[in-house]
Amino acid sequence: MKVLVLSSGGVDSTTCLALAVEQFGAANVTALSMFYGQKHDKELAAARAVAAHYSVEHIELDLAPIFRYSNCSLLAHSDKQIPQESYADQLAESSGEPVSTYVPFRNGLFIAVAASVAESRGCERIFYGAHRDDAAGAAYPDCSEAFKQAMNLAVCEGTGGHLRLEAPFVEMNKAQVVAEGLRLNVPYHLTWSCYEGGGEACGVCGTCIDRIAAFAANGVADPIKYTDNAENTEEN
Amino acid sequence: MKVLVLSSGGVDSTTCLALAVEQFGAANVTALSMFYGQKHDKELAAARAVAAHYSVEHIELDLAPIFRYSNCSLLAHSDKQIPQESYADQLAESSGEPVSTYVPFRNGLFIAVAASVAESRGCERIFYGAHRDDAAGAAYPDCSEAFKQAMNLAVCEGTGGHLRLEAPFVEMNKAQVVAEGLRLNVPYHLTWSCYEGGGEACGVCGTCIDRIAAFAANGVADPIKYTDNAENTEEN
Repeated sequence: MKVLVLSSGGVDSTTCLALAVEQFGAANVTALSMFYGQKHDKELAAARAVAAHYSVEHIELDLAPIFRYSNCSLLAHSDKQIPQESYADQLAESSGEPVSTYVPFRNGLFIAVAASVAESRGCERIFYGAHRDDAAGAAYPDCSEAFKQAMNLAVCEGTGGHLRLEAPFVEMNKAQVVAEGLRLNVPYHLTWSCYEGGGEACGVCGTCIDRIAAFAANGVADPIKYTDNAENTEEN
Repeated sequence: MKVLVLSSGGVDSTTCLALAVEQFGAANVTALSMFYGQKHDKELAAARAVAAHYSVEHIELDLAPIFRYSNCSLLAHSDKQIPQESYADQLAESSGEPVSTYVPFRNGLFIAVAASVAESRGCERIFYGAHRDDAAGAAYPDCSEAFKQAMNLAVCEGTGGHLRLEAPFVEMNKAQVVAEGLRLNVPYHLTWSCYEGGGEACGVCGTCIDRIAAFAANGVADPIKYTDNAENTEEN
């Protein structure tokens, strides 16, 4: 069976790719990465390195024009700064609105694109790295359980039952995803999660904070370097 | 309230656009058209003419790279011919598979793109011209009732309840959509439905056959010209 894996170059999707390679073999795995107009392309470079590491087919698509009207703080044309605080702190200030790093319906779009490509490539499964923590409270509505279930059904029905969407980590938290990745010898040194595009990860944006905590919960140091984070630096 | 309308330049979506303009006013309507790599761009040209007719904002996006691996017969790079017969005849020959004009998960992708753009433009509704006949039997799984319901839910949940998907014609058949369009004085002479890209519509592909029948059921001639169709020619 052939499987398509959504691969962003970050921790969750890289672990998901490693699991797909273990289960189906590299020859049956296609990794799909999408650029959406971020302030940098470090995630895409990481996704390329990961695909090369696993010797899987890698498809890249540029979806930036779709988001040209959004003022999400992650996007190159946005005048907003990327927040340097946890998701919990951002939500406390947001009056119930999504956080500024919410890219409008991005995950819905990514899954729909994946379904189109998977159907064209003869894949019967889409794997993606969704997990229990990735809604970050209510920061990302397109990571909610209700959304994932509805999208699962839409993909299955919209392809006449050919294709199924699977999120193997959906019952895990991010620390458990990293634990699974350590078992699988995932090359985390190749991955990139930080919202900023510096030479090193910033260590203080929402996604750096979550990543560092997931490694710390496993008692291991994150192999990438951080400009500003005492917790990880102490363990390195 | 602002509304985004999926506009393909065909009969159903143009009628849907006319209804949105009647209900919300042209200043609150944005039409969104997507090119997906067809053998011609006559639909896009029609969508442009329709948007100009109604003086609504018109956004165009090119999604062709997403479908570059598909061998759907509508696509420019495909070596397949577009069938010259009804959907019913095609399905009878297809052993339960989707017809050759099925573009993989196209409608799921279109709705997901619409959700991203609508969120960015401050729209609270997406209108689209789905109707009771548009699954053409089981020719198009991404037009089934189950698919539409699942996508509705995915859009609502994935945007934190900001956005809703509405298909005002979902209980109507195509002839009833045309009846509604005649009431609304829709400029059907500007629209294009034919899968082929000739100077005139072919009159013998699945979508021409359905379109001609919908006008005939209303006892009026379709205002566009057909190269090959006795039924419509007699009425013109």
